[in-house]
Amino acid sequence: MKNIQAVEFKLFQQNLRAAGLDAALVHSNEADFANVRYLTEYWPAFEATAVFVPARGGTPVLLIGPESLTYAQRRSVVPNILKMVEYRESAEPQYPGIPVASYKDVVKRAMPGQKLRKLGIVAWSITTLPVWMRLQSDLPGVKFIKADDTLSNLRIIKSPTEIALMKKAFQVSEMAIDAILGEIQPGMTELQVIGIAQREIYKHGGEYEGHALYCFCGPATNNAISRPTHNRICKHEMIQLGIGARVGGYSSSVSVPFSIGKLPSRKQRLLEFGLEAHLQTISLIRAGKPAADVVTEYESWVHAQGFGRYLLYGPCHGIGMMEAERPWMESTSTYELQENMTFQADTFFYDKDFGLRWENGVRVKKGGVELLSKKHMKLVQL
Amino acid sequence: MKNIQAVEFKLFQQNLRAAGLDAALVHSNEADFANVRYLTEYWPAFEATAVFVPARGGTPVLLIGPESLTYAQRRSVVPNILKMVEYRESAEPQYPGIPVASYKDVVKRAMPGQKLRKLGIVAWSITTLPVWMRLQSDLPGVKFIKADDTLSNLRIIKSPTEIALMKKAFQVSEMAIDAILGEIQPGMTELQVIGIAQREIYKHGGEYEGHALYCFCGPATNNAISRPTHNRICKHEMIQLGIGARVGGYSSSVSVPFSIGKLPSRKQRLLEFGLEAHLQTISLIRAGKPAADVVTEYESWVHAQGFGRYLLYGPCHGIGMMEAERPWMESTSTYELQENMTFQADTFFYDKDFGLRWENGVRVKKGGVELLSKKHMKLVQL
Repeated sequence: MKNIQAVEFKLFQQNLRAAGLDAALVHSNEADFANVRYLTEYWPAFEATAVFVPARGGTPVLLIGPESLTYAQRRSVVPNILKMVEYRESAEPQYPGIPVASYKDVVKRAMPGQKLRKLGIVAWSITTLPVWMRLQSDLPGVKFIKADDTLSNLRIIKSPTEIALMKKAFQVSEMAIDAILGEIQPGMTELQVIGIAQREIYKHGGEYEGHALYCFCGPATNNAISRPTHNRICKHEMIQLGIGARVGGYSSSVSVPFSIGKLPSRKQRLLEFGLEAHLQTISLIRAGKPAADVVTEYESWVHAQGFGRYLLYGPCHGIGMMEAERPWMESTSTYELQENMTFQADTFFYDKDFGLRWENGVRVKKGGVELLSKKHMKLVQL
Repeated sequence: MKNIQAVEFKLFQQNLRAAGLDAALVHSNEADFANVRYLTEYWPAFEATAVFVPARGGTPVLLIGPESLTYAQRRSVVPNILKMVEYRESAEPQYPGIPVASYKDVVKRAMPGQKLRKLGIVAWSITTLPVWMRLQSDLPGVKFIKADDTLSNLRIIKSPTEIALMKKAFQVSEMAIDAILGEIQPGMTELQVIGIAQREIYKHGGEYEGHALYCFCGPATNNAISRPTHNRICKHEMIQLGIGARVGGYSSSVSVPFSIGKLPSRKQRLLEFGLEAHLQTISLIRAGKPAADVVTEYESWVHAQGFGRYLLYGPCHGIGMMEAERPWMESTSTYELQENMTFQADTFFYDKDFGLRWENGVRVKKGGVELLSKKHMKLVQL
């Protein structure tokens, strides 16, 4: 095993024992690849995956779909690999003649001679019915317990290696935005703009998009979440970029609202206020502060400035392997910010006919933050 | 509702009634977006989604995560939309203050006055535990039944509109491959080549990649499924492209193996045999033929030619909204090919130190096929 994962495995096993678990089954799929990659470096394509980790001794086992063996052997730092039909493609091919394992086989391989009573399920929210049904038929009498915290508690504090990958990812996103600002023209489609970003991300060392990239122009900028379309870029309209590269398994995202030519003053005013609010959020973050206080102080400040009606949500969510990962900052949050947690300051305001988002990454430090991106944290009018 | 979905809804409801179901809950996520999009045009980003469809009268209801309302209202042809926390992002934010629905609310909205006894679950393989647990607590006494066939039976036969979108998608993939063949140079990374394809896909009308695109060079070409890396393109090595654009919700993929400069004769021979085998598969497909016969005749032919040891799987899988969807052609298949089914002829051979894949789309006709792509179905040496 590579060093970084060897350390993470040990800490994860400590957490499993502290939670009274005998082992954990950790899931990933194409859309949320992070948990299994964090522990094994394996990242599925087409299929899903899991890693079974005993809490005491034993040996982890990577579980893959029937088509990925050669690929998994190349990528995974966990050398024990078993194929299971439960991790096949969603179209459910039969694969006649390809031998597959059961969870009984997995337990025997991972923790020989040990008794499995309590199995933690990590990535509960993406665990599927075929996996769930098979667990119950293969492992009668075993108790299955949602155990996301045992791994997310490790993932939320970033190591120097992880921070370095995130900085590189943010830098690649900034290079993609530079290219867009240099090439964008009225008449291009939103999707064509995304193509420029994709070219740059892959050219400068990205391994994939960090999230579904977006460029919106005009009314569609009021979508908190959306997909780019064949709409054409116009002058004097809000243009919103959300560009995120992924490097070495770590994601980034930089969001910049701007225009080609002048905006109407109502839109320009909210754009400028958005940047003020964004800087306000960033100024509220420091190690030791309760996360909920950042949210309530930010929201009070926005309301006091008279812009409360344009607020949907925010102002921060965790970022790391996934562009949006734990911990979220919400008024209901019960944790304190710690050094080397990493967040997206995510400032979204919307009105009926437009909206805007400023987004940059920060690393929590004593007394403040280190910005992971800042080049495009300024007003731009082309 | 748009016309195409209105027709599909009616046929789907007929299938539900024929299966003895009172309604269906149909799931999609970011990685398998197809079922919900087929019925509603909605395609989630970051979050997951479902559509609840009553079998008799009533009104379908689209279920989304807490952040997607504005986007869903713009895209969905189903005007009834409810937010549920079970379809939120996998990092599980709490969303304090955003009201969400229960499945009781959904049933009341979708089929007022009707009794729900049997609920079909479509896309069983990606249905998650939070959905499953909530269904059981919200709808006690209801029987939940895997019902993928009720929808996939519609999706496997393509309409003229669907065929037209697929042809366009294949054409965009071919344009991306043309650009790659014009620009690829020794020393480029595999990922950089993917960036060229991404730029072209978005420039020529693609809405997204049809699958995780790949370019491999050298030993990594022996991976049936894999991800491109920072490996550099070399001369006299196998180079494998798998490029797929998605247009209007329909996916394509064209796979071409080639080299820059001459290949060693052992590799060149398998490359050429691969193309012969690919054409052999295509010649075996016609309406009325049992799918299993295509597989067994193909495999016998490959063995008779003396290349059986290089065979992993194949030779065809369904293609449509998903690049790999039902029906698979396997020796265990029990259906006959029908007109307007669409398949990928997917010809993969591998040895210890290299491999190759030829892939093109076909539409089943009486007496044969119509090729959805053919431009790159030939030997290329740059």
